[in-house]
Amino acid sequence: MNHDYVLKQLSWRYAVKKFDPTKKISDKDWEILEESLRLSPSSYGLQPWKFIVVHNRDILKQLTSLSWGQSQIEDCSHYVVLTTKVKLDEELIDKHVNKTAEVRGLDPKLLAGFKKVMVGDLLNGPRSETIYHWAQRQAYIAMGFIMETAAMLHIDTCPMEGLDPKGYDKVLGLENSGYATVAGVACGYRHPEDKYQNIKKVRFDKDDVFTYIK
Amino acid sequence: MNHDYVLKQLSWRYAVKKFDPTKKISDKDWEILEESLRLSPSSYGLQPWKFIVVHNRDILKQLTSLSWGQSQIEDCSHYVVLTTKVKLDEELIDKHVNKTAEVRGLDPKLLAGFKKVMVGDLLNGPRSETIYHWAQRQAYIAMGFIMETAAMLHIDTCPMEGLDPKGYDKVLGLENSGYATVAGVACGYRHPEDKYQNIKKVRFDKDDVFTYIK
Repeated sequence: MNHDYVLKQLSWRYAVKKFDPTKKISDKDWEILEESLRLSPSSYGLQPWKFIVVHNRDILKQLTSLSWGQSQIEDCSHYVVLTTKVKLDEELIDKHVNKTAEVRGLDPKLLAGFKKVMVGDLLNGPRSETIYHWAQRQAYIAMGFIMETAAMLHIDTCPMEGLDPKGYDKVLGLENSGYATVAGVACGYRHPEDKYQNIKKVRFDKDDVFTYIK
Repeated sequence: MNHDYVLKQLSWRYAVKKFDPTKKISDKDWEILEESLRLSPSSYGLQPWKFIVVHNRDILKQLTSLSWGQSQIEDCSHYVVLTTKVKLDEELIDKHVNKTAEVRGLDPKLLAGFKKVMVGDLLNGPRSETIYHWAQRQAYIAMGFIMETAAMLHIDTCPMEGLDPKGYDKVLGLENSGYATVAGVACGYRHPEDKYQNIKKVRFDKDDVFTYIK
């Protein structure tokens, strides 16, 4: 692995304003991007999320109108909507415990302590009061993962936060699903005419955002 | 860039339970990890964060006791605490507008429209009601970026969410700073005896977390 390459790609990445609608992500590359979402870390490994990949032109059009008319949604190669559990419940915790037992060849009963900690912290503890925000934060880790993975593969993205989540839920049929829209990520390739690729990235200076306690 | 390498490292990564206290991240590598935080995307590019790197042994000890006694904090090579703005204000927006003008050689007055959109959305719009959570979510993108960047460089991490944020704020002198603790990330190298490196990663199946709208 070339260290300079990683740094170069982190700088190369920007929020694409205009995608090239003629360029499509290959199936092989898309599979890696999906895996980067699926393999993303989350608190307790609980994965309180579902990802919706929208290819339907009519649905994409409706989502555009629910996203300030931003062209990225229809022009990109793959548009993925990140959703999370609206209400965290024992069902998801049990599912995670059972999957853990299955993958690691254990009796789920051996994981009773693990379950108890999660229930105590997330369902009954102080964290339960803001659990919806907690779930959303986890999805932002996944958002970070797909954006950085894309950059490593020289694929462009644009995170989409400026959208009407309730409108998305309706269009995507999420009402009563237990999951709700958090944000979208448009993936594809920058249009040669997107002027934003040529202007300098704006970041605060290192000594402004970093403090060292020695 | 080797595509298989990216996928391999995403699988290689896990939340390290026991770091090797004798192994330190090189300055060159740490610089890339810092850059991955600094270059992380955030809504409007607003970077509502500060990162605190703690090397002081006494402070690390205190943070450990505020983090369920987890050994990663003291055994890792670099422990970084992610903090975000407690209350989003015009000061940060102005700072971002001015930095944008400086970096891109523009008159800040030309960015009045950009400022107006941010103020309208984040300070006065419906998003202002949950702006603290919004800021925290942005920090989770950065958390994703440092963890994936580390994995690409074959460096281990452990995200630390199980901690007492108010206790951290006190120990780190953040009270009245305008910033508050969100989470920590321990960075370093896995101990050969950390048994968690050998057990299978638990993730829901692809067709369980992905839906396609065709």
